[in-house]
Amino acid sequence: MTALAGVAAVADAALCSAEGSFAPFRAATAETRAHLLDEIAEQVLALGDDLLRAADAETGLGLPRLTGERARTVGQLKLFAQVVRDGTWVDARIDRRDAARTPPKPDLRRLLVPLGPVVVFAASNFPLAFSVAGGDSAAALAAGCPVVLRAHPAHPKTSERVAAAVATAIARAGLPAGLFSLVGGDGHAVGLALVRHPLTRAVAFTGSLRGGRALFDAAAARPEPIPVYAEMGSTNPVFVLPRALAERAAELGAALGDSATLGTGQFCTKPGLIFVVDDGSAASGFAAFVGALGSRIAGKAPSLMLYPELAGRFRESAAELARAPGVTRLAESGEATAPPDFGRPVAWQVSVEDFLRTAALREEVFGPATLVVRARSVEELERVAASLAGQLTASVHAAPAELAPARSLLAILERKVGRLLFGGVPTGVEVSPAMNHGGPYPASTDLRSTSVGTAAIHRFARPLCYQDADPSVLPPELRDGNVRGIWRLLDGRFTRDDVA
Amino acid sequence: MTALAGVAAVADAALCSAEGSFAPFRAATAETRAHLLDEIAEQVLALGDDLLRAADAETGLGLPRLTGERARTVGQLKLFAQVVRDGTWVDARIDRRDAARTPPKPDLRRLLVPLGPVVVFAASNFPLAFSVAGGDSAAALAAGCPVVLRAHPAHPKTSERVAAAVATAIARAGLPAGLFSLVGGDGHAVGLALVRHPLTRAVAFTGSLRGGRALFDAAAARPEPIPVYAEMGSTNPVFVLPRALAERAAELGAALGDSATLGTGQFCTKPGLIFVVDDGSAASGFAAFVGALGSRIAGKAPSLMLYPELAGRFRESAAELARAPGVTRLAESGEATAPPDFGRPVAWQVSVEDFLRTAALREEVFGPATLVVRARSVEELERVAASLAGQLTASVHAAPAELAPARSLLAILERKVGRLLFGGVPTGVEVSPAMNHGGPYPASTDLRSTSVGTAAIHRFARPLCYQDADPSVLPPELRDGNVRGIWRLLDGRFTRDDVA
Repeated sequence: MTALAGVAAVADAALCSAEGSFAPFRAATAETRAHLLDEIAEQVLALGDDLLRAADAETGLGLPRLTGERARTVGQLKLFAQVVRDGTWVDARIDRRDAARTPPKPDLRRLLVPLGPVVVFAASNFPLAFSVAGGDSAAALAAGCPVVLRAHPAHPKTSERVAAAVATAIARAGLPAGLFSLVGGDGHAVGLALVRHPLTRAVAFTGSLRGGRALFDAAAARPEPIPVYAEMGSTNPVFVLPRALAERAAELGAALGDSATLGTGQFCTKPGLIFVVDDGSAASGFAAFVGALGSRIAGKAPSLMLYPELAGRFRESAAELARAPGVTRLAESGEATAPPDFGRPVAWQVSVEDFLRTAALREEVFGPATLVVRARSVEELERVAASLAGQLTASVHAAPAELAPARSLLAILERKVGRLLFGGVPTGVEVSPAMNHGGPYPASTDLRSTSVGTAAIHRFARPLCYQDADPSVLPPELRDGNVRGIWRLLDGRFTRDDVA
Repeated sequence: MTALAGVAAVADAALCSAEGSFAPFRAATAETRAHLLDEIAEQVLALGDDLLRAADAETGLGLPRLTGERARTVGQLKLFAQVVRDGTWVDARIDRRDAARTPPKPDLRRLLVPLGPVVVFAASNFPLAFSVAGGDSAAALAAGCPVVLRAHPAHPKTSERVAAAVATAIARAGLPAGLFSLVGGDGHAVGLALVRHPLTRAVAFTGSLRGGRALFDAAAARPEPIPVYAEMGSTNPVFVLPRALAERAAELGAALGDSATLGTGQFCTKPGLIFVVDDGSAASGFAAFVGALGSRIAGKAPSLMLYPELAGRFRESAAELARAPGVTRLAESGEATAPPDFGRPVAWQVSVEDFLRTAALREEVFGPATLVVRARSVEELERVAASLAGQLTASVHAAPAELAPARSLLAILERKVGRLLFGGVPTGVEVSPAMNHGGPYPASTDLRSTSVGTAAIHRFARPLCYQDADPSVLPPELRDGNVRGIWRLLDGRFTRDDVA
């Protein structure tokens, strides 16, 4: 068998298993599905701290961070179990029959149903929370979709351990093993084969723009196109307005320096561009801001990046950025020597004019680096904001009195981002109903969707309408008696009542 | 100026106008938006029956049908006005701050916001309800999106009249004229230019598979891909089970003959494939079924199709289908001679074996034609159902006692369709909250979305999350005081209460 045939066989086996498990999974009750999610959480916990040590050995993220990430992973699974038990997510709608109307109005009942087998690509930067039993897997299983998980080659042992925990949970829940498969190995061929497989119904991905776009293009070129949720690059611009700068210069500089280097700068929401209005006066606060930011950067030791190739790419992008016209180095980690797979924190500075001149400065540098862009006015911020591509987040630091005059800047940013923050840093993504983690391209290939929070369940579902169906045919969520006690739109009115 | 440059200039002018109107439209209140939709409805009505006569002259659909279609068009606009006034569609979610938690939990508030300028392609077969002021335009304006409307070249005068009515309504609502543009003319170039224009944020289309796929591919190849809702081909298979056949043979045959030829067979939901279980016994009812269907077909006069090219295509597809192995003619309109732009009703018959052998028999024949496929068992229905592509609808005729044994057939159909009907005919699409008009490819390029009913507003919106925002920055739907009285998810719980 050639390597390519081997790849095709691996993809085919995983998707066929997933497809085979779909009917029994659909037939299972919501409680079984919720129980599965809870059980996966328990089995992940049951792996104990050995899991964290394995993940640390493969990612260098450190035990404190990985302990927190495990808690988030378990929390996500349990949150989706609650969503499934609650049941309202299916967006049930019932329009009652009106036989007296001309023509007679039929009985229509509609709910969201799972898409079928989906392919989830694990992220390198969250070996637990965005990997095997991470957010997309939890959301897909919650929706009722079998999952084929493309492991990230940077943490294979961690992936195998968690996959074993998932398999145990599936067996304990009495569900078919094919519901979840791990596809390991290196190279792009297997991922593309999974995306192109005719049984695949959707794809979720977190990673680079190049990787995400390749998967998007492959899915769009299928005979039958499918949804692709690829979360890709974002520079998460920060906008500091004059009065906020004057009032909180040192505090903001320190907070942004910390945020840009947190986890060796390997967060999707790392603030990579910081636009600051410096009116040029001595009292502007700009010097204090860059001083505080710079001293934070200088004080951070270089740290291990997720995998050697990533560290190499970071060094190259950083070097390229440093060479751009008008860019000067603001600060760099005091420790000049570090192993080649470490990332050395660095911050640069550039003027708005030079920033607007060099397109490469808008690109994400994945790692512990940030670029301060010095503007002279809020109008310049507007101009630069309008020039930016889509982003996961933008953050605004403004004194209360500055918000009203900044209305047009905010209106520009509202169109560019999935989440608009005030007064905080973009790292730290809450897992909750109101979170939106996504945004206009290239932040995501599908700005209608979030990858974090309970709304992520909608990625993996679609509406199905029953017309004049016998109650025996209807799913429980659509029967007259509201046995699940869910909120439903009954003749256009939200209610938990039974159909009278 | 070359023709191509002319096309590009037309597209650019329309999109730039739309973009220019977006900010003022977003700044307008929901009541203004609702009022605009009501006003469009009024202005369409104010065109009087002249509009219907113009539409009849261009489409041949006849005044009774066009009177009904105008009522639907007006009804859709008013329904979306209600949706906008109600306001709950924005899916507002508020997670309150918890400063005591470690780390502190931020205040998160999320709602759906309009995508921006969208391009809507009018359909030939609904010159009013799926054209200039049709469903997609109403849904897009309701969501807050400016609309560039690509008129269908088959009814230019109707389009211009309705566009004038829309322009009057926009002026009366005090909104910018650029909110709505009509792009006329012939040929594919202008449509592609609209889809490729960088300011276009989404595309809605109803028409052929070839046309829809070309637009989908063009959008997917953009530097910044955008959502495409292309509703395309569907054969709307009907499944008649043995007892239903025995009990209602003549009634079903007549109803399906009528449905297949209604509006000269030019509905997206026309039943093009009718699978009937005939156990071969004299009492099966099959003879009575095809007899009744055939006599309805034979009794229909040929009628004018929407445009000459369509009539030509219908004749060619019908001739091709008639030549396929095993296909026999069941009935044809008694009037053998008709002008070349008329469609002559026809029905054929084929066995399941021959149907499965010839892929061309699965393709939609747009016009007054249907193919009866004779099966020997419900198991054969399952096999044939599993072989079908995605569909807008499937219809099942089953006696009550047949439903439970047909469970696996129904499970197959649930995965293939957007709407599953029992005991009725698929033509006649209710405009209401629970309707789903869409389905797996090739019925639609996006099975997550409906083109009919109030849920269509979601095509043109995306989530935006505010973190720790001052109330002055928040849209009214997200402020503590629930001034709009909408349903919101507050800390995961549905309520119309204010935030305490």
